[in-house]
Amino acid sequence: MPAEQASGNKVGQKSRRAIFRARDKYFVPAKTRRDNRRVPASEQLQGSKISAMNPSIVLRNATRAAVRRPLAQSVRIAVPALRVAGRRWASTEGAATTAAETEPTKKVTKLTADSYPNLQRGSHFSKITAEDVAYFESICPIISADRGATEDDLKPFNQDWMNKYRGQTRLVVKPKSTEDVSKILKHCNERKLAVVPQGGNTGLVGGSVPVFDEIVINMASMNNIRSFDEVSGILTCDAGVILETADSYLREHGYIFPLDLGAKGSCHVGGNVACNAGGLRLLRYGSLHGTVLGVEAVLPDGTILNDLSQLRKNNTGYDLKQLFIGSEGTIGIITAISIVCPQKPKSQNVAFFGVESFDKVQQTFVKTKQALSEILSAFEMMDSNSQNIVGQVTGRKHPLESKPPFYILIETSGSNPEHDSEKLNALLEDLMENEFISDGTLAESETQQKELWAWREGIAEALGHFGGVYKYDVSIPLKELYVLVDDVRAKMKDAGLLSTPENPENVVVDCVGYGHMGDSNLHLNVAVRQFDKRVEKVLEPFIYEWIQKRRGSISAEHGLGVAKSDFVQYSRGPTELAVMKGLKTMFDPNGIMNPYKYVKANA
Amino acid sequence: MPAEQASGNKVGQKSRRAIFRARDKYFVPAKTRRDNRRVPASEQLQGSKISAMNPSIVLRNATRAAVRRPLAQSVRIAVPALRVAGRRWASTEGAATTAAETEPTKKVTKLTADSYPNLQRGSHFSKITAEDVAYFESICPIISADRGATEDDLKPFNQDWMNKYRGQTRLVVKPKSTEDVSKILKHCNERKLAVVPQGGNTGLVGGSVPVFDEIVINMASMNNIRSFDEVSGILTCDAGVILETADSYLREHGYIFPLDLGAKGSCHVGGNVACNAGGLRLLRYGSLHGTVLGVEAVLPDGTILNDLSQLRKNNTGYDLKQLFIGSEGTIGIITAISIVCPQKPKSQNVAFFGVESFDKVQQTFVKTKQALSEILSAFEMMDSNSQNIVGQVTGRKHPLESKPPFYILIETSGSNPEHDSEKLNALLEDLMENEFISDGTLAESETQQKELWAWREGIAEALGHFGGVYKYDVSIPLKELYVLVDDVRAKMKDAGLLSTPENPENVVVDCVGYGHMGDSNLHLNVAVRQFDKRVEKVLEPFIYEWIQKRRGSISAEHGLGVAKSDFVQYSRGPTELAVMKGLKTMFDPNGIMNPYKYVKANA
Ligand SMILES: Cc1cc2nc3c(=O)[nH]c(=O)nc-3n(C[C@H](O)[C@H](O)[C@H](O)COP(=O)(O)OP(=O)(O)OC[C@H]3O[C@@H](n4cnc5c(N)ncnc54)[C@H](O)[C@@H]3O)c2cc1C
Ligand SMILES: Cc1cc2nc3c(=O)[nH]c(=O)nc-3n(C[C@H](O)[C@H](O)[C@H](O)COP(=O)(O)OP(=O)(O)OC[C@H]3O[C@@H](n4cnc5c(N)ncnc54)[C@H](O)[C@@H]3O)c2cc1C
Repeated sequence: MPAEQASGNKVGQKSRRAIFRARDKYFVPAKTRRDNRRVPASEQLQGSKISAMNPSIVLRNATRAAVRRPLAQSVRIAVPALRVAGRRWASTEGAATTAAETEPTKKVTKLTADSYPNLQRGSHFSKITAEDVAYFESICPIISADRGATEDDLKPFNQDWMNKYRGQTRLVVKPKSTEDVSKILKHCNERKLAVVPQGGNTGLVGGSVPVFDEIVINMASMNNIRSFDEVSGILTCDAGVILETADSYLREHGYIFPLDLGAKGSCHVGGNVACNAGGLRLLRYGSLHGTVLGVEAVLPDGTILNDLSQLRKNNTGYDLKQLFIGSEGTIGIITAISIVCPQKPKSQNVAFFGVESFDKVQQTFVKTKQALSEILSAFEMMDSNSQNIVGQVTGRKHPLESKPPFYILIETSGSNPEHDSEKLNALLEDLMENEFISDGTLAESETQQKELWAWREGIAEALGHFGGVYKYDVSIPLKELYVLVDDVRAKMKDAGLLSTPENPENVVVDCVGYGHMGDSNLHLNVAVRQFDKRVEKVLEPFIYEWIQKRRGSISAEHGLGVAKSDFVQYSRGPTELAVMKGLKTMFDPNGIMNPYKYVKANA
Repeated sequence: MPAEQASGNKVGQKSRRAIFRARDKYFVPAKTRRDNRRVPASEQLQGSKISAMNPSIVLRNATRAAVRRPLAQSVRIAVPALRVAGRRWASTEGAATTAAETEPTKKVTKLTADSYPNLQRGSHFSKITAEDVAYFESICPIISADRGATEDDLKPFNQDWMNKYRGQTRLVVKPKSTEDVSKILKHCNERKLAVVPQGGNTGLVGGSVPVFDEIVINMASMNNIRSFDEVSGILTCDAGVILETADSYLREHGYIFPLDLGAKGSCHVGGNVACNAGGLRLLRYGSLHGTVLGVEAVLPDGTILNDLSQLRKNNTGYDLKQLFIGSEGTIGIITAISIVCPQKPKSQNVAFFGVESFDKVQQTFVKTKQALSEILSAFEMMDSNSQNIVGQVTGRKHPLESKPPFYILIETSGSNPEHDSEKLNALLEDLMENEFISDGTLAESETQQKELWAWREGIAEALGHFGGVYKYDVSIPLKELYVLVDDVRAKMKDAGLLSTPENPENVVVDCVGYGHMGDSNLHLNVAVRQFDKRVEKVLEPFIYEWIQKRRGSISAEHGLGVAKSDFVQYSRGPTELAVMKGLKTMFDPNGIMNPYKYVKANA
């Protein structure tokens, strides 16, 4: 790098070294996009390579950039070996692995019922009759095998975003109003017909598709913004409004949705609330438990629960809406939400830097919170292994030239560009002077911001390129966040499974850790050349027990669905589970709502 | 005011008028205090006049400034008239009136059981036996009439902060650990002994004291800070820690508690969570539903529910802790909480100004949110009637000389004093240029900030000086926040009850409105010379119906307790109430937890 450039963006006069530099030519300008906001890393890193769109998503969302599903050649390579091994999904072993275990695109995804042979169709559930179909048809549009719908017509509703789970529904109903939902559920409850509420179908734990022949209640046709108050910033809208649509609407009015995530072009706000999505803005705007003010829901018996308050304060009895936030469609269908939305920020900055130890990452987090305080909107941590892999897979030059063991991405969102820069510069100067950070760069344009984000958001995609990935999305008290990665790596090494200079072909490519440091949310990913029972044995139940010991969470933000339903006891005690089962039974005595998933009342 | 002074703090060169001026001599320096933070307005406005300390509070909190109870000569003057009228507490009429209806300090407070004759002692509850007392004594310290405790010894536990409610307990137990609480509740549940969980006993709706002979479980002895993580800002502590103690502890570590309220010197964090207190920081830091991360609670049967997560993200089943937030002691006893705490702000500003209409108040709110965005920490609204009364009662000179119909107090809390002042000045300049505000002043020291706050916080106290106050603490969609006050004032005028220049002695002194505009929380207060059935008839059910029509809340932050238990149907529909009753029955099948209050399962 030329000396002039290196000193170009030097922070302050007191800096020992001019490590913060202007971004140089490896920045390839991003394609012109529909709007100026961040785009999914998959698009940025892969460009035209991506082509296999999810038909269900395109169908429901034809006019906007939809979320792309993972590439067959990346995350699905290891699957044939797995199938030969005849692995059982229902056992503890390896059940936390996700995308990597699904079929190549052209192959038919294994039925969830076959992957989880311990799940049996509820014998008390009725089968759909011609009368049922006729009744539903009298209420709203349906897609029914009994009316000529083919398997392909039903596929978008039977199969999940990762092509990992596949159900066997013969009937999809598409209510257009809360009253429609009420009539549908009342009928299902009386007839004991099991149902699956479905939003944008972007969930990552198999919660949004049937296991057997459950009726899919798809919410896409309930997509009206009901009201927005420009004074209070309170939005009320149907559950089926797409997150990005809500956000775009709000931006036109000077606000933003207090939640942001990669699937925003397809997921529904109702789906977000149903799975209590976390995403990229949680550090700043808090969880949906704080921002959602009201929920309108239809209970399993068809009763409409109108808790659609537009008030920030309402202390008149138990806060029922809270139970629906994160309930994953098991106690009722959310038909509308109201939510308090923050101001649209007038300025944003992104800095990216290297740190020599996890201790220093923690100290840097404290310093950053102190210095940036009210303007800090993201604090993301990545280890060097994850960055090496992104570089290796994408062939791009890393923004930092040094090779520190940890990287941090900081984002600020504020109301005054000058003030924000001043705060950020003061922080960076301080961090450098005190030798917290070893190297760094500051984005100088929105394009550069996106490119820096791509090194964080591209990790998941890149990891899949070697064969398969064992994925864990967990919460751990901050102090020990990275210890888990070290421990797992040490165990892989001890077991002789980790690739080393001496044994470069060992099955484990690497154990990497990254995640929402600001929220104590770690993504531990173990990239492998192929799935291997020996690796699984090292991972489980070791990881679950490790998390349990620290009172961590085996699912930070993705929920339980089918995937983690059998492991919830690692994060919840028997009393908690008993109360949860009591709640489920109270709301849904016939168990028609999204059976076989979440906390099973009769397990 | 001298011209030099008037121009001293002029905002910007473009200002049409130099309306923002330095605070002049009416500022009397506040007494030196234990810390530098805001003090209850009562202390500031009344100084040495206040003497009647609440003995229960002093007892439990000897080393710190406790919350003072209202003065007999101020808010309790009208009571004798009331008693003569033989008014029934249990009817809708006037039941929302609070402090003003209690006894003068020297008189004995009427038993709640007498004030609410519709409440009957649960016939299925046992009476305490000698064996019960012996058993409790074997667990932890107790105060028992059977061990010689006098009525005076029990009074601090039987009587509430306002001296409005009085119970008849003969036994107070003071557990020192979660296990103590568990043993106590298990025994009570088996023996069908009713209990009242009690925190700092500062609640304003009669929820924290018994109605009949319920055993008081006082949490004051469970007062340890269990842990604090300086990196994540997550505090875990016993339920009985006093809010101010927690806040002081946090301040030493560079953090603050995300809740602040006038009773902080006495109330418990467990009590705050149990009634989902709102307070002064909600606009900035959000509700406890977002900040509380975990709750440890003992269920009525003695089972310990350990949901004391220290994680910001944990999507593993229904979020049970949410049910305890705002449950007012009806489904279990909270023994510990964990909560994520914000940074201590490095700079604070307070501005106070006049506005010509409620429309402009709303527009000012929008502009303020836009300009101050991340540093706005309070936006309080007061009408001129409330300010006139504070001036009249305290005899102090109002900070503003003009007489606009509305006043606004804005507070900023940020991390950089220069940036914050710059943002605030830019806002004020803009507001003046666009004629949103007509007059204003900016505090130049912490003392001046406190003095300005006193004009907001002193309203409640001042209103009581005329005889009595009908008080309503309600949430209304922002647009119509002040319309309720206008409507009520118009009705009083139409009914010939409002004092006017022609009839200066009419019973209604004035109808005033003020409150947490940022949270849509209005305090509607009707100050009267004495309580009067004619006034009550105009107020109720008119106000409840008015609120119901707007889907407002009849209790924004104080909860239901005894006071609003019978009116909850104005804010909650039958389905919601049915679900709430189901929850109560599920958690507490014997109904031993805080009976006669909140949402009654068998009502
Ligand atoms: C590319 C990508 C990125 C992601 N990033 C994040 C992230 O950063 N953070 C995060 O937390 N999650 C993330 N996710 C997962 C996330 O949970 C979903 O994207 C989203 O929140 C689900 O919304 P949906 O409308 O697609 O719900 P679906 O997938 O349709 O449903 C999810 C669950 O909610 C239930 N449900 C849906 N709608 C309703 C309703 N109206 N009423 C009742 N129940 C309902 C379903 O039955 C199911 O159990 C990501 C997913 C993808 C594909
Ligand atoms: C001067 C003053 C100012 C106030 N300002 C505000 C304000 O700005 N905002 C606001 O929201 N409120 C305010 N309040 C009322 C507020 O609710 C209380 O001050 C406080 O939150 C109650 O805490 P406490 O520990 O005193 O609870 P208590 O009064 O002892 O109890 C309140 C309720 O919670 C239950 N409870 C208490 N502890 C527990 C426990 N550990 N487990 C289960 N249940 C329990 C009780 O049974 C009771 O039903 C104010 C009160 C006063 C006196």
